[in-house]
Amino acid sequence: MGKSRLEAFSDGVIAIIITIMVLELKVPHSPDFRALLPLWPVFMSYVLSFVYVGIYWNNHHHMLHAVKEVSGGVLWWNLHLLFWLSLIPFVTAWMGENHFETGPTAAYGFVLFMCSTAYSLLVRGLVVHHEKNSTLAEALGDDRKGKISIVLYLTGVALSWFAAWLGFLVYVGVAALWLIPDRRIEEKVVEEIEQEESRSNAN
Amino acid sequence: MGKSRLEAFSDGVIAIIITIMVLELKVPHSPDFRALLPLWPVFMSYVLSFVYVGIYWNNHHHMLHAVKEVSGGVLWWNLHLLFWLSLIPFVTAWMGENHFETGPTAAYGFVLFMCSTAYSLLVRGLVVHHEKNSTLAEALGDDRKGKISIVLYLTGVALSWFAAWLGFLVYVGVAALWLIPDRRIEEKVVEEIEQEESRSNAN
Amino acid sequence: MGKSRLEAFSDGVIAIIITIMVLELKVPHSPDFRALLPLWPVFMSYVLSFVYVGIYWNNHHHMLHAVKEVSGGVLWWNLHLLFWLSLIPFVTAWMGENHFETGPTAAYGFVLFMCSTAYSLLVRGLVVHHEKNSTLAEALGDDRKGKISIVLYLTGVALSWFAAWLGFLVYVGVAALWLIPDRRIEEKVVEEIEQEESRSNAN
Amino acid sequence: MGKSRLEAFSDGVIAIIITIMVLELKVPHSPDFRALLPLWPVFMSYVLSFVYVGIYWNNHHHMLHAVKEVSGGVLWWNLHLLFWLSLIPFVTAWMGENHFETGPTAAYGFVLFMCSTAYSLLVRGLVVHHEKNSTLAEALGDDRKGKISIVLYLTGVALSWFAAWLGFLVYVGVAALWLIPDRRIEEKVVEEIEQEESRSNAN
Repeated sequence: MGKSRLEAFSDGVIAIIITIMVLELKVPHSPDFRALLPLWPVFMSYVLSFVYVGIYWNNHHHMLHAVKEVSGGVLWWNLHLLFWLSLIPFVTAWMGENHFETGPTAAYGFVLFMCSTAYSLLVRGLVVHHEKNSTLAEALGDDRKGKISIVLYLTGVALSWFAAWLGFLVYVGVAALWLIPDRRIEEKVVEEIEQEESRSNAN
Repeated sequence: MGKSRLEAFSDGVIAIIITIMVLELKVPHSPDFRALLPLWPVFMSYVLSFVYVGIYWNNHHHMLHAVKEVSGGVLWWNLHLLFWLSLIPFVTAWMGENHFETGPTAAYGFVLFMCSTAYSLLVRGLVVHHEKNSTLAEALGDDRKGKISIVLYLTGVALSWFAAWLGFLVYVGVAALWLIPDRRIEEKVVEEIEQEESRSNAN
Repeated sequence: MGKSRLEAFSDGVIAIIITIMVLELKVPHSPDFRALLPLWPVFMSYVLSFVYVGIYWNNHHHMLHAVKEVSGGVLWWNLHLLFWLSLIPFVTAWMGENHFETGPTAAYGFVLFMCSTAYSLLVRGLVVHHEKNSTLAEALGDDRKGKISIVLYLTGVALSWFAAWLGFLVYVGVAALWLIPDRRIEEKVVEEIEQEESRSNAN
Repeated sequence: MGKSRLEAFSDGVIAIIITIMVLELKVPHSPDFRALLPLWPVFMSYVLSFVYVGIYWNNHHHMLHAVKEVSGGVLWWNLHLLFWLSLIPFVTAWMGENHFETGPTAAYGFVLFMCSTAYSLLVRGLVVHHEKNSTLAEALGDDRKGKISIVLYLTGVALSWFAAWLGFLVYVGVAALWLIPDRRIEEKVVEEIEQEESRSNAN
């Protein structure tokens, strides 16, 4: 089955998720600059979540680039990922409105943890389907960055009970870790394409 | 007429429907975890509706995969389906806010019933247009699952008058029935593609 | 310049317009069926606007199907159309909330009139760009239905001053007029494709 | 890496940004035409922002048209641009609700300035990636219009402290400057295509 509609639907959902979060930045009724100050934590949460959703879109893009076709099961693993991503606006707003207190910060980390897990499950679903086409499997390798992130999310959740800003810092750190694009897949794909081109030139 | 824009538009509308439902999860003003408890029924409704909209997207995807082209009439049957799907966020929110009482639970079932009927009409419209290309018609067979669902939705609506949670359980059951992807079409399409490939290899 | 991104962007905007209108159906706080009764005029307005936006999407789809490429100016005529379409949710909500009184019903008609005019301007922009490729120009003919609609919208606006429901009825009538798909273009396109195919078969 | 998903995702986000702004046009509770009068500044802001987001979409479309492929870094420059564009609905609403007072008008100009800077950075990222393929680099030339705009935005921000309507006028002026489509790229692309066609005809 082709992957184009899966990409289109995911793009649509992720585009909406990343954009509706800005609706939580409630417009102040006063024209004074100082009216923006109370929005500071909401804005910080918005920036972090924007980066996270951007990372997911980016990695989703890279991953499906290395994929030739998808199975019916993959459609469901993808929807499962989109479900957890769709909860990011909710926990973002909760964390922002409550100035990074324990409850919301832990909940934010929990949703990030679930997104990460859902992403791993999607990857696994794709790898299973692509046994013969090992570009994806090779490209992912042992997915060290993914495993580290999952541990860090749980650390962030735990730290939120001591000091919520520590949890928040951990989430910022994981985002920084991922801002470096997933060169593994990118390089593999580039190699693959070059090989294919040289092969077709050889014919 | 090509089917790509029909797919793109449907993807867009369904992506928005599935995502705006999360806006009904009103952010609590307290940072306490217990503030999430009253959201429980809203969250449950959200999960069920997310799964339902996911099922519709999935089946829509599979169905149009088996289709080569669409007529002007099909565009309207498709819009008719999207109309009923667009009411899902409304009944979801009503059911969630009122903790699964009779009225909203029956209304939820009614909208599911109308979505299901609209989907059948869309299928019928496509089959009529594809008389000669019988992949779709054969693949659908007698659409037993669709007919059972329609009966179950009506049962759920009726049960809501006795106990709303019974109606809700029936809707959960129908969703479970559909989570198994529509292998009939998938298999038919795979067969068709393989035959076509073997034919083109034979040439 | 290719038309695919113009289509994709228009699909996105129209999909959002058609879907956010449902947010005006405010969820009642009571689980009683009678709580739905006051929503009746909002629902009626929603249905009519859903049909109108559907008609615009449908015609936009048919029209661009007959088009091979677009100029930079056409992008702006298209945005101009999308601007007026984006006001439909606003006037729909105003009309629905005020039970079809004079002001909102006239405003609704005015926005429909502007959408219709914007559509005509877009068509004109496309025809100018396609002088040599006359499929579109021939297919549109004298655009009788478009001209009649514009007159009817103005009639509806005028009638709103006497009785708002009369204006509303006129808008329903125009929608009914358009629900019949624009067979002129469809037939022309089909002819064209057949001719092209027979030509390429002849080679 | 292909550019199609970058286009699709950007189209989605920009389509949502341009459409959710209309939600700030709060529906008046009175059916009287005079109830629309207080919406005047909100409507004016909406129109200006619609035009601005339209300009960005238009230029984004033209620019990516001249591009053959994108790197991983470009995905991030693009997300950076989308981030600043996503703040337009917020400052639009703030400016509209406060009838063009100093604070919101300056903030509006600041966000436009950041969008413009983010666009320049995206262009730079694309040019770096396309060294060999100089269509884009040549087409952009010295980007005079971009540089003038950045200066004008800062002028607008500064003027807002003296009289907010002066700042607003400057933003209207910059928009007018850009409404003229970026013919530089368009012409270059047309040339390029013609050359390519004549080359392939020569073969």
